[in-house]
Amino acid sequence: MNALRTDLYEIRMAASYLRRGMTGLATFSLFVRDLPRDRGFLVAAGLAEGLDLLQGFRFEPEELAYLGQGLGLPATDVEALSRLRFTGDVRAVPEGRVVFAGEPLLEVTAPLPEAQLVETMLLNSVTFATAVATKAARCRLAAPHAELVDFSARRTHGGDAALAAARLTAIAGFGRTSNVEGAARHGLRAAGTVAHSYIQAFRSERDAFRAFVEDFPAAPVLLVDTYDPVTGIALAIEVLREFGVQPASAGVRLDSGDLLTLSETARKMLDAAGFGSARIMASGGLDEYALEGLTAAAAPIDVYGLGTAVGVSADAPSLDTAYKLVAFDGRPVLKLSTGKRTLPGAKQMYRGAAGEPDVLATADEPQFPGREALLVPVMLGGRRLGQPSVSSSHLRCARDLAWLPPAARRLRGPEPVSVRHSAALDSLAEDVAGRVRESQNHAAGVAR
Amino acid sequence: MNALRTDLYEIRMAASYLRRGMTGLATFSLFVRDLPRDRGFLVAAGLAEGLDLLQGFRFEPEELAYLGQGLGLPATDVEALSRLRFTGDVRAVPEGRVVFAGEPLLEVTAPLPEAQLVETMLLNSVTFATAVATKAARCRLAAPHAELVDFSARRTHGGDAALAAARLTAIAGFGRTSNVEGAARHGLRAAGTVAHSYIQAFRSERDAFRAFVEDFPAAPVLLVDTYDPVTGIALAIEVLREFGVQPASAGVRLDSGDLLTLSETARKMLDAAGFGSARIMASGGLDEYALEGLTAAAAPIDVYGLGTAVGVSADAPSLDTAYKLVAFDGRPVLKLSTGKRTLPGAKQMYRGAAGEPDVLATADEPQFPGREALLVPVMLGGRRLGQPSVSSSHLRCARDLAWLPPAARRLRGPEPVSVRHSAALDSLAEDVAGRVRESQNHAAGVAR
Repeated sequence: MNALRTDLYEIRMAASYLRRGMTGLATFSLFVRDLPRDRGFLVAAGLAEGLDLLQGFRFEPEELAYLGQGLGLPATDVEALSRLRFTGDVRAVPEGRVVFAGEPLLEVTAPLPEAQLVETMLLNSVTFATAVATKAARCRLAAPHAELVDFSARRTHGGDAALAAARLTAIAGFGRTSNVEGAARHGLRAAGTVAHSYIQAFRSERDAFRAFVEDFPAAPVLLVDTYDPVTGIALAIEVLREFGVQPASAGVRLDSGDLLTLSETARKMLDAAGFGSARIMASGGLDEYALEGLTAAAAPIDVYGLGTAVGVSADAPSLDTAYKLVAFDGRPVLKLSTGKRTLPGAKQMYRGAAGEPDVLATADEPQFPGREALLVPVMLGGRRLGQPSVSSSHLRCARDLAWLPPAARRLRGPEPVSVRHSAALDSLAEDVAGRVRESQNHAAGVAR
Repeated sequence: MNALRTDLYEIRMAASYLRRGMTGLATFSLFVRDLPRDRGFLVAAGLAEGLDLLQGFRFEPEELAYLGQGLGLPATDVEALSRLRFTGDVRAVPEGRVVFAGEPLLEVTAPLPEAQLVETMLLNSVTFATAVATKAARCRLAAPHAELVDFSARRTHGGDAALAAARLTAIAGFGRTSNVEGAARHGLRAAGTVAHSYIQAFRSERDAFRAFVEDFPAAPVLLVDTYDPVTGIALAIEVLREFGVQPASAGVRLDSGDLLTLSETARKMLDAAGFGSARIMASGGLDEYALEGLTAAAAPIDVYGLGTAVGVSADAPSLDTAYKLVAFDGRPVLKLSTGKRTLPGAKQMYRGAAGEPDVLATADEPQFPGREALLVPVMLGGRRLGQPSVSSSHLRCARDLAWLPPAARRLRGPEPVSVRHSAALDSLAEDVAGRVRESQNHAAGVAR
């Protein structure tokens, strides 16, 4: 694992803490400050990748060499950093659950240098994954009866992002992925038809369709829009008949043009030709907004291929995540920065029945009866406690999406579930802010 | 290298081509169909990563096992795929150059199965990198006299994306990166101050400032906005004085609030205290639009930390890239799909003086005198031809940005440089489209 995969300031802070013996337990809370526009909920994700990074955390020999020679850290700092592993505890919201602004997705408690050093990698894992899982869940809600397929590999931000997107879309309820590595690594079903280039590589569209059905007779989905889609559909039907393909295993794919009209035309032509059970797949720049429109218009589309918009979470490619120190050495802390004020102390969140607000509370106050605690232990002393499967995370996600009130599920102008604070949390925040202001006023009096 | 890092359809098409002996030379052209809103140009990038992938292309033993057992490909297909390497040629626009819609960023010529299989990885490398390099170049244009620092590692789409962003922002003219691995791998200068958690971890802000200056006396930049920024600045000045820090090596960082007003206040307070040469750094959700506003208002900010918005190219997180077959077996081809029509044949682009349109031409027509050809050979027979340094790509980028007309450089509502087609290209496109339509009409007559 690569401990250099971090911001320089993490290393400098850790070095400073180690020099000063500031190795008491610190708790950091990772949360999203505000939901992006048009997001009524988030689907928590990225924990799998984040915990992998924590478990493998260490500076390798060539990294240590760079700390010394490249960054000029003294040998004593390099030596101290070389011994660091992540030995802390993590409590987190399991992947697939829905969360809202201000709710911790995870809390890390570890000796201060360790807890600080992992900030960049944890923020990176959770932010991207939660954005993409959320986008995918919105697609799932927008076309509840269609099969959704992840087509994002070609335009995610790198190959690792594509691999992650395959898993994240599956958590949200996508049935297959075009990403072969994603399917192989995460045990998902792979999906794929052909590109326009395949059609172009043959002397005629008919030749291409024949070759494809001959080579992939099991469940051929013919791409019909390379030249003219209506001609393409007619040709596809001819070739499917010629090769005796069973209607239920045949399909056509539309990748351009007016998908509503074309899918209606395709459905009529297929039905008239005795291919009533052949499936229609649509793709090409689709997102949850397009799916909502096509679903409302009852477009006869059985399968949607969703690519770029989901894989980069196009209208919200990042989240306003923060990883904030909330306690150190037994002392709850906060910051007061304009617009970025934080709440002190380790926390717990409680969820009630549909329609009830969540409750954000201190970690040590009594449980709220009849409510479920959302943060659960996932790592103890640097060791993961089990690893949920993609399908169990998907079940959690499906259950939580069903729990969401309609107003929070809306694609545009949604109203998130509100989050109220426990009395104990509000009173702790008042106390700590008061103490900080007092000490600031004193400092200002001296400094000015 | 991981050849499974692709879409299933690439593997199916390649298998079909191999079975049929369709291994003639194919040329694919990778281009951006349309520029995103508010983009007057693109900075070509991602070639370095893309060529790495081509050079290492192969199916590893465990990948071949998955092709057979996981995907059910017959042993003969698996055997044929196992022998594939990328043996083709690539011509490309060097990284850092500006390009416009419809201009090929690269053209691959290789036996059809190879050229097809690398589609997903090439699109993935080029799309993300070009989006981010472009976003970074816009920041460079928006604050021409400030130093820019890459702070994106915490919210890019994974760690590999962060590593890439460090390089891409450097090509666009950023001076440093917070990403330690990025600095180490690409020979860049690393930058880092401290997080708010550092300030909070001490009993008081003053104690934190003292510790930081003591531990990093060379060029301490104090983060002043954890509690109250004006008090923070006053305290910072006190501590800088107390430790005798030279003004020219000192700095303060503002990470929240009204950066214009706060930077003016900071400048006044620093100047009055004899710290006229101390630098002011600003960060916190900044993008090129914010930089343009602060630059126009003459905010006294010397260094900007730019993170998320650049690292995910927030307002254009992907590009409408396409990788299209333009010739196969000596025959130019195109597709006619609605809104996605392509131009046939291998191409060349020619660039003239500032203000002149680019010319898109066929690859084999005579050069245009007085104009520079933009596509240059970068890989021959599967081997890279040299590898430009980050600094040479940066020089190219700076030169091309200076070449851009002001209307193309505008951040909002820009007018891209226009691209005209050579007569030979238009006439080839007409010929090929005519032939395709004729063959389609024939097919339609038969099929309907």
